[in-house]
Amino acid sequence: MSDILPGRFISLEGGEGTGKSTQAKALSRLLETKGLKVHLTREPGGTPGAETIRELLLTGNDEKWNMRTEALLFAAARSEHCQSLIKPALERGEWVISDRFIDSSRAYQSVSGELDDVQIMSLHQVGSGGLMPDRTFILDIPEKIAAQRANARDRGDSDRIGGRDSEYHQKVMASFRSYATNEPERVHLVDASSSVEEITSKLMQNLSEWLS
Amino acid sequence: MSDILPGRFISLEGGEGTGKSTQAKALSRLLETKGLKVHLTREPGGTPGAETIRELLLTGNDEKWNMRTEALLFAAARSEHCQSLIKPALERGEWVISDRFIDSSRAYQSVSGELDDVQIMSLHQVGSGGLMPDRTFILDIPEKIAAQRANARDRGDSDRIGGRDSEYHQKVMASFRSYATNEPERVHLVDASSSVEEITSKLMQNLSEWLS
Repeated sequence: MSDILPGRFISLEGGEGTGKSTQAKALSRLLETKGLKVHLTREPGGTPGAETIRELLLTGNDEKWNMRTEALLFAAARSEHCQSLIKPALERGEWVISDRFIDSSRAYQSVSGELDDVQIMSLHQVGSGGLMPDRTFILDIPEKIAAQRANARDRGDSDRIGGRDSEYHQKVMASFRSYATNEPERVHLVDASSSVEEITSKLMQNLSEWLS
Repeated sequence: MSDILPGRFISLEGGEGTGKSTQAKALSRLLETKGLKVHLTREPGGTPGAETIRELLLTGNDEKWNMRTEALLFAAARSEHCQSLIKPALERGEWVISDRFIDSSRAYQSVSGELDDVQIMSLHQVGSGGLMPDRTFILDIPEKIAAQRANARDRGDSDRIGGRDSEYHQKVMASFRSYATNEPERVHLVDASSSVEEITSKLMQNLSEWLS
């Protein structure tokens, strides 16, 4: 893949404890060994300014922000992230791998029904020109395993959004799956219940087939 | 006016140093003497959550946020302010007087040309259901006097947005005046170069005529 010049933008999505961060790191390292310049980043956050918004979003109790304010804060953090890091990197022909991006806003902020997908995408249009990843991997595991992994990692210290109830997280996952159905070119559902190495291998194979 | 039951929402707008805060306080006191329940508030801010977003917006240097992120943060603070304070008060039939509201976002965030009025209003629609004040007073004074007042108050410590150059502030004021031209029922331009008492008297007279 080292002969690919234009920048590529990959996002990893999925519920809590599905291994997104681990896979983002592994993918980033592997792509770097192929001579690519890769920016490994995350949302909300990814730049100093966006990380201060992340702090507002993920700390405190669930009642801290209503869903509309939450959606606007995510869009604000993403706007800063896109303009300061992602877009300049892609313009230089570099790669960006983001642990979560717009699909997380679509899945998490639409659950309550206060906001719909059109509204969430309209915030993304105003804030970030509607930038979409070139490819999105949704890491999908049975909810029970996800909860175990999340608990093992957090030791009970879920953040403000991760701590919502299992019905909420089931709806989030159903939304993620619907994106894979509706946008099959961009969004790929990956069974993430196997070992870390096997999942990384699947992701790399998918990227190789896409780019060859 | 004490026989008015439904809540009324008044905003005070204008550039830096035009006396908005002083007039908001004076108006609030006078309406309270007429037996009305009045909430005196301000933007960005007005509730604890929105005040934390205010802190992000007004501190630091001008390059801290790009204009799109800035607009989203203002819309987020306003969403919280509307849902936690303004709408509940209006539903109870109480009055709200806000030192700045949506017209400030329209005037300040559209100057650079990166965002237009339709986009700023779309953020307001998603965040706050497009809530508009019942009446808006734009305090208008010659730029030179405004700068003197702002300097006297700030002693050189302008905030992140107030510190922008005079050309920027002239464009902001031109936008404010255009709202009075385009929405004459809601938006009233008030010559604010006279004494505090005279201006308060003008505002109260305007309200009396409106409500009688």
